[in-house]
Amino acid sequence: MVSLLKMPKNELESLQNTLRDQYEDFKAKEYNFDMTRGKPSSDQLDLCNEMIKDDSLYNDPKSSNGIDCRNYGVLDGIPECKQLFAELLDVDEKNIIIGGNSSLNLMFDYVSQCMTHGSGDLPWAAQGRIKFACPVPGYDRHFTICEHFGIEIVNVPMLDDGPDMDFLADLVKDSSVKGMFCVPKYSNPEGKTFSDAAVKKLAALKPAAKDFRVIWDNAYCIHDLNATPDNLINIFDACKEYGSEDMFVEFASTSKISFPGSGISVIVASDNNIDAIKKRFFAQTIGYDKLNQLRHARFFKNAQGVRDHMKKHAQILYPKFEAVTSALEKELTGLEIASWNKPNGGYFVSLNAMDGCAKRIVELCKQAGLVLTPAGATYPYKNDPNDSNIRIAPTFPPVEDLKVAVQILCLCMKLAAVEKLLQK
Amino acid sequence: MVSLLKMPKNELESLQNTLRDQYEDFKAKEYNFDMTRGKPSSDQLDLCNEMIKDDSLYNDPKSSNGIDCRNYGVLDGIPECKQLFAELLDVDEKNIIIGGNSSLNLMFDYVSQCMTHGSGDLPWAAQGRIKFACPVPGYDRHFTICEHFGIEIVNVPMLDDGPDMDFLADLVKDSSVKGMFCVPKYSNPEGKTFSDAAVKKLAALKPAAKDFRVIWDNAYCIHDLNATPDNLINIFDACKEYGSEDMFVEFASTSKISFPGSGISVIVASDNNIDAIKKRFFAQTIGYDKLNQLRHARFFKNAQGVRDHMKKHAQILYPKFEAVTSALEKELTGLEIASWNKPNGGYFVSLNAMDGCAKRIVELCKQAGLVLTPAGATYPYKNDPNDSNIRIAPTFPPVEDLKVAVQILCLCMKLAAVEKLLQK
Repeated sequence: MVSLLKMPKNELESLQNTLRDQYEDFKAKEYNFDMTRGKPSSDQLDLCNEMIKDDSLYNDPKSSNGIDCRNYGVLDGIPECKQLFAELLDVDEKNIIIGGNSSLNLMFDYVSQCMTHGSGDLPWAAQGRIKFACPVPGYDRHFTICEHFGIEIVNVPMLDDGPDMDFLADLVKDSSVKGMFCVPKYSNPEGKTFSDAAVKKLAALKPAAKDFRVIWDNAYCIHDLNATPDNLINIFDACKEYGSEDMFVEFASTSKISFPGSGISVIVASDNNIDAIKKRFFAQTIGYDKLNQLRHARFFKNAQGVRDHMKKHAQILYPKFEAVTSALEKELTGLEIASWNKPNGGYFVSLNAMDGCAKRIVELCKQAGLVLTPAGATYPYKNDPNDSNIRIAPTFPPVEDLKVAVQILCLCMKLAAVEKLLQK
Repeated sequence: MVSLLKMPKNELESLQNTLRDQYEDFKAKEYNFDMTRGKPSSDQLDLCNEMIKDDSLYNDPKSSNGIDCRNYGVLDGIPECKQLFAELLDVDEKNIIIGGNSSLNLMFDYVSQCMTHGSGDLPWAAQGRIKFACPVPGYDRHFTICEHFGIEIVNVPMLDDGPDMDFLADLVKDSSVKGMFCVPKYSNPEGKTFSDAAVKKLAALKPAAKDFRVIWDNAYCIHDLNATPDNLINIFDACKEYGSEDMFVEFASTSKISFPGSGISVIVASDNNIDAIKKRFFAQTIGYDKLNQLRHARFFKNAQGVRDHMKKHAQILYPKFEAVTSALEKELTGLEIASWNKPNGGYFVSLNAMDGCAKRIVELCKQAGLVLTPAGATYPYKNDPNDSNIRIAPTFPPVEDLKVAVQILCLCMKLAAVEKLLQK
């Protein structure tokens, strides 16, 4: 295909007319597609339905150490769940706390704890204006937590192998920079995984703030899509050489393994951080839902059980990602109006449109019956400086819908690009 | 029986010898009783076992408004749970938020929110040293939340019909007093219920702090034991006359209705407070466990279903409370060394021993194989100024154990009293 950038004006005008006709055809069909959020599809949820009516809980509600999971108690999780995550994440059970239904909630609570009690000598809230580093594009909910607590967000460019480490190393010379949010594996939205070198450089980071904390949101730790998955090395192993274990707090959940909103979550942290978090837990709760912990442990049995289960998710998800990326390739290759990733896992395809076109594309799609994540959502303060990034969430719609939706998307991308080029 | 206070020294010495022999007999039996916490017994938990394996969730995981409860979404609870609690607590559904497995967690989070964001113009944390009023004796977990956030606790005497309102009205003239924790029905530990007059006076309270908040912990709202239950009037109805709805935030849960740790919780609040809480929720979570909400709504069906269910709890609990109070009456009446309540509901019997004896009694019991809540636990900073109050939690042990345990308790109370009197 010919680059639109090199197309003469009269050809662009002619193309615009053709595209507009096609666009009107789509509009007339009154489609109603939603690709806004990274939600599992109902056939993914069906994979865990047996967990819902697990008779074993009814017959024996006791954990492996004899605790009646129907009653009060156990602050940090039942042993079988700790074992499960210790094996999956390759860490000691003593460095694990099992949480409730949401790792986002655990991350929010941890930042809240740092604000009121600090992660070092002083509460963050008592230290004046503080900042967080966030690789961009990134996960909107991370930004929301920072914004909620009045933490200023500094954009860190995301390179192909992780955050721009030179930029970050320079940034953390400022002692008001107290931490960083990141998704180290299959990053949201770009599906990139931090390289071994990047993880080691992070472990070796020497921030001016002694109470600097990296929120290591390992949301997609075992969420591979194909036979060539990415590999993320264990951050706590990397820290050993530098004694920097206290700088990282890892979070994960089964939200996209079992049920979003009805799964279990986990914190992995150093001995010091586990102690500090448990102190807050003691004031905050009597304990999380142990019946749901037991339900999960009995259903998955062990780490291999979870890994096998994730292959079933991949079987459902791979064709959806393939439908998106192959259509993008077919429709847009050579036009020089977009780039996109082809991730080995995670929940998103990240699309970079021609600068200044993302908002227009999302608006055009909406009018044609395809709701996308709002343009800008992948940047702090909803401000994508290039108005270029669009997050595609292909997991929820059926693959047939998806194929049509991507046709609409590609058409709108071309239309927006032509409009832009004709304005010049 | 003869008052020990009037007993001559030689008779006290003789009694001491007899009691010591009895005490050694108990010790020799090596009992192991635990009455430390207000935990339901396993036969109470059995009442809800069918909920655990509810096939209806498996067959139809959708809420009444068609939401798939297995997936993300719904920040404030599914409609059928809101309806259930609206009916039970006699409030509008719009003033209800359904939470996770712990109302304590919701209370902690609310105080945390007030610390970082305030309940009025300024964050509490930005207002210097702040204070909370707490009726005493009270619930240790409330005190722990205050202590965690560095909020100074001021003891408010608990009278028979509620907090000492004259004392409180005077106290809240101090604008650094930002709130109060209370259990208005079947208070923990005394089982007292705020009278209509007390509730109205609270609604009419005019604290100097415009951002004053009462944490209305209605933990035992429908937890009656007998056919003559206490009645608590609706705080929000009482507020209407004074326009003070924003001053109260009510919390409750099914922890002692269904399963402790695996139940659902609820916030009731004014429109303004609901808005403020939802703002924080939006940053904190995608939503609470909707499958568990649906499980509860389907099991109980409606408010009458919950009320009927509570009668089954009462059938199990009444004989236990009766075993405790009848033994106290039989063993201690007339001795003038103790007073206790005989509650119509709740989870505790509160015992006031002779001043300066509570710690000694708990220690004596422990050595004879009966673990009680530590003396002082019902007071802020674990400091019972009279060293008198002991919280008896009769719900967990089987009634046969309970009968023996109370014999040990009564014996230790007599022994400690005699020791004390002989020291004089």
